[in-house]
Amino acid sequence: MENGILKNVKGTRDFMPQEQSLRNRIRRTLEGVFEEYGCKPLETPMLSVYELLASKYGGGAEILKEVYRLSDQGERELALRYDLTVPLAKVVGMNPEMRLPFKRYEIGKVFRDGPVKPGRFREFVQCDVDIVGTSSMLAEAELISMAFAAFERLGLDVYIEVNNRKLLSGILQELGVPEERAGDVMLSLDKLEKIGIDGVRDDLRERGVEEPLIAAIVSFLQEGETTLEQLAGRFASPGVQQGVSELEQLLAYLQGANVTGDVRFSPFLARGLGIYTGTVYEIFLQDGRITSSIGSGGRYDEIIGRFLGDGREYPAVGISFGLDVILTALEMRESEQAERAADVLVVPLGTEAASLGLANRLRADGIRTELELAGRRLKKALDYANKERIPFVLIYGENEVENGAVVLRNMVEGTEQAVPLAEITQRLREALMIR
Amino acid sequence: MENGILKNVKGTRDFMPQEQSLRNRIRRTLEGVFEEYGCKPLETPMLSVYELLASKYGGGAEILKEVYRLSDQGERELALRYDLTVPLAKVVGMNPEMRLPFKRYEIGKVFRDGPVKPGRFREFVQCDVDIVGTSSMLAEAELISMAFAAFERLGLDVYIEVNNRKLLSGILQELGVPEERAGDVMLSLDKLEKIGIDGVRDDLRERGVEEPLIAAIVSFLQEGETTLEQLAGRFASPGVQQGVSELEQLLAYLQGANVTGDVRFSPFLARGLGIYTGTVYEIFLQDGRITSSIGSGGRYDEIIGRFLGDGREYPAVGISFGLDVILTALEMRESEQAERAADVLVVPLGTEAASLGLANRLRADGIRTELELAGRRLKKALDYANKERIPFVLIYGENEVENGAVVLRNMVEGTEQAVPLAEITQRLREALMIR
Repeated sequence: MENGILKNVKGTRDFMPQEQSLRNRIRRTLEGVFEEYGCKPLETPMLSVYELLASKYGGGAEILKEVYRLSDQGERELALRYDLTVPLAKVVGMNPEMRLPFKRYEIGKVFRDGPVKPGRFREFVQCDVDIVGTSSMLAEAELISMAFAAFERLGLDVYIEVNNRKLLSGILQELGVPEERAGDVMLSLDKLEKIGIDGVRDDLRERGVEEPLIAAIVSFLQEGETTLEQLAGRFASPGVQQGVSELEQLLAYLQGANVTGDVRFSPFLARGLGIYTGTVYEIFLQDGRITSSIGSGGRYDEIIGRFLGDGREYPAVGISFGLDVILTALEMRESEQAERAADVLVVPLGTEAASLGLANRLRADGIRTELELAGRRLKKALDYANKERIPFVLIYGENEVENGAVVLRNMVEGTEQAVPLAEITQRLREALMIR
Repeated sequence: MENGILKNVKGTRDFMPQEQSLRNRIRRTLEGVFEEYGCKPLETPMLSVYELLASKYGGGAEILKEVYRLSDQGERELALRYDLTVPLAKVVGMNPEMRLPFKRYEIGKVFRDGPVKPGRFREFVQCDVDIVGTSSMLAEAELISMAFAAFERLGLDVYIEVNNRKLLSGILQELGVPEERAGDVMLSLDKLEKIGIDGVRDDLRERGVEEPLIAAIVSFLQEGETTLEQLAGRFASPGVQQGVSELEQLLAYLQGANVTGDVRFSPFLARGLGIYTGTVYEIFLQDGRITSSIGSGGRYDEIIGRFLGDGREYPAVGISFGLDVILTALEMRESEQAERAADVLVVPLGTEAASLGLANRLRADGIRTELELAGRRLKKALDYANKERIPFVLIYGENEVENGAVVLRNMVEGTEQAVPLAEITQRLREALMIR
C-alpha cells in the first residue's frame, strides 16, 4: 500500500467499537420511543436525482453548494442527499394514495461538502421524526412529549424552548420592522440570551438597521414584558394573537399529556430563516455541559406543498435529534465509559471444542460471552479481559472438563473458584445482577 | 415540481413502513446475536478515498468499473464504498495498536453502479462479521454457530454447506488440472448440483478445456466418492490432506459447540475465484423457497496483509448476511404480513388534551399507542385502524372522561365495552398477550 492512501476522507471518521456501541444504544432507544408513539420507520436512498435536490423549493442555493454530485454509467446526474426532508417530500409525492397524517421516522446518513469544524462532519447521521398532513397542535404536543420520553430513557435531563413564528413575526411587524429587515432582526434577537440587549443593539447596527428602529426594539426589550400574557395584552395584531393562541393550545395539550418536563416559552427563538411557519422548538441539556441544542424542530406547513406543486396542502411538523451531539453528552458521563464489551471471557486450555459448547450455553442463557480465539496463554488472556473491562473469566482446562466444573475468576476482586458446570449460569447471572 | 424529477435513482428504492419495520427487526436480531458472540460494532464512512478502493489488492478491475466516483470542493478524488471489507482492512491498517483478534460487525449501505436485476440494487445493505488475526478453526466454528443462532432467532430453518479451498485446489491438482485452468474448472464444478455431470461436461467444453482433462474430471465425478473420508483416502497430496484436516477440525469444533444445525460437506463449493484461502461456506433455506444463498463467507488469510503491505500477517475469516434476501424470506411467511404498526389507537372525541395523557400512560406501560391526530370522525378512525391492523381502539369522549372510563373496541371481534381507566392497561395487556 502506498503511503497516504490509508486515510479517511476529510470530514469523515470511523466509529470504533466503544463509541459505536453507544451510538447503537442511542439509535435503538430512539427507535423504541418513536415506535411507542406510533411513528413508522421509512428508509429512503442516499443517492438522489440531482434535479430533485436542486429544485426551487429544496434547500436553496446555500445548501446546493454543499451537495456532492456524481453520475452513473448511464450518465444520469445524481447527488447524495443532504437531509431527510426532501426524501420525505419525494415519498409523499410519489405515493398519492398514502393515508395522512403520515408519521414517519428515518435515521440515516446525509452528506454535505461544507466546512469541517469540531463536531461538524461531511457525512453524518440525522434522526428525524415528521408528521405530515395535520394542522392540529396535537402533532407538536406529541413530538415534544416524545422528545422528553426519549431523553428520559437516555438518562439526559433536558429543557425545551418553544416559540411560534407567527407570534415572532407579528411582534416585529408591530415594532415597525419592515419585511425586508425582518430576517436580520430575527437573527439578532435569536442571540439575545447569549449577547444581551447591548449585544443585540451592536449586532443590529452592524447589520445596518436604521437607528429609530433599533431604538424601538431596544426599548421593547428593556421593558422586559415578554410573557405570553403580556405579549397578548400588548399587541393586538392577528399574527400575534394567532401565535399566542397556538402556543396556549400547545401548552394546554402538553399539560393534558402529563408532560412534566421543563418547557420554556422563548419569544425570540427563531430557528433560522428557513422553512418554519408556526411552532418552533429547541432542546437543551439542563446542566449546560453542551451549550448548543441537542434536538430541534418545528412546523413547516408550506414547504412540501410548494415542493410538490400538486395543488394540495401538506401541513407538517417535525423534530430532529442530533445523534452525534447526544453521543458526546453521554460520553461525558463517567458511568458510560465503563461500558463493557462482554460479560464473560471463556479461556480454553486445550479444551477448544468443549469451550465452544460452554460459550454457546452461556449465550443461550443471555450472557454476552466472548471466547478466547487467539490461543493466548492464560496470563495474556487475563490482561485482555482487564483491558476490555470484562468482569468475569471462565478458565476451562482438561481437569475441569473431567470434573464437570469450570474455574470462575472475578476480575475485579482477583479471586478464583471452581464452580460446577450446572451452576455456572446461575452464579454468573447473580454476579452480573449485583454488580 | 416538473414532471420526471419525482422519482428514485435507477437501482435504488424506498422502504415503506411495513417493510422497513421488518428490516429493522432483522437488523436488531442480527446485532443482538452478533453481540452475544462478543462481536463489536464498527461504523466506517461511506465516502472513501478513490485510490484506496482502486488499490491493486482491493476488489480488482471488475468491481472498479462499478464504483461511483465523485470529488469534493477541494478536488479530492473520492468514491462510494462497494463493500465493507476494504474499510475493515483500512481500519486495521490505521490502528496498528489494535488488539487482535479483532471481531467486528458492520451493517451498512454499499454502492455498486452495476446491472440492475430483480433483487439486485445499486445501493444496498451489507451485514458483515469478520474476525481478523487468528488462524484457528475456532473462528469459523464461532461464525457458523452464530449463523445458526441468528437464523433460529429469525425463525428461518437453514442448512450450511461447507468446503475448504485447499481441499478443492488439491483435488484439481491431483486430477491434472493445470493452474491456469483451475479457475474455469472450479466455476464449472460449483454448478454441479444445478446442472449435473453432463452439464458440467458441456460447461467445461464451452470454456475450452481439453478433452482428456474433461474425461478425467467426469470420470472422477461419476465414481461419486466424495465424502471427506473417501477423498482423504484417495488423494495423498499435502493440499488435500491439509484441507481435510482443517474441515475435520472445524466439524469437531462444531460438535463441541453443540451445533445441531444441518452442516453439509460440499466438496465443489468454491465461492467464486476471489479471496478465499481455506474454509468457505454458504447458507441456504431448508425449504428451498429461495434458491440463492442467504448468507456466505469464508477464510481469507492473505488479503488484508497484501492490501496493507506492512509485512505483517492478518489471517481472517468472515461471514456476510443478505439483509434483503432475508427480508424476502420473511415476507413470504404469512404470519409476518400480520405485523401491526401499533397495539392500540386512541380516538379523542373533543377530549384532545385528556387523550394525550391517556396515550402517554399506555406508552409508559409498554403499549405501542397511536393517537388519532387528524381529527377524523369515529368511523374514519375505525377504518384506519382496520387497514393498519391495529387490534384495539380506545374511544374517549367527554362522557367517558367524566365517568373515569374509556370505551375499548376490539377490532377483530367488533365488540365494544366501557372499561374503567384504572383497569385499561391491565385489560389491554391481557388481551394483547393472548392474541
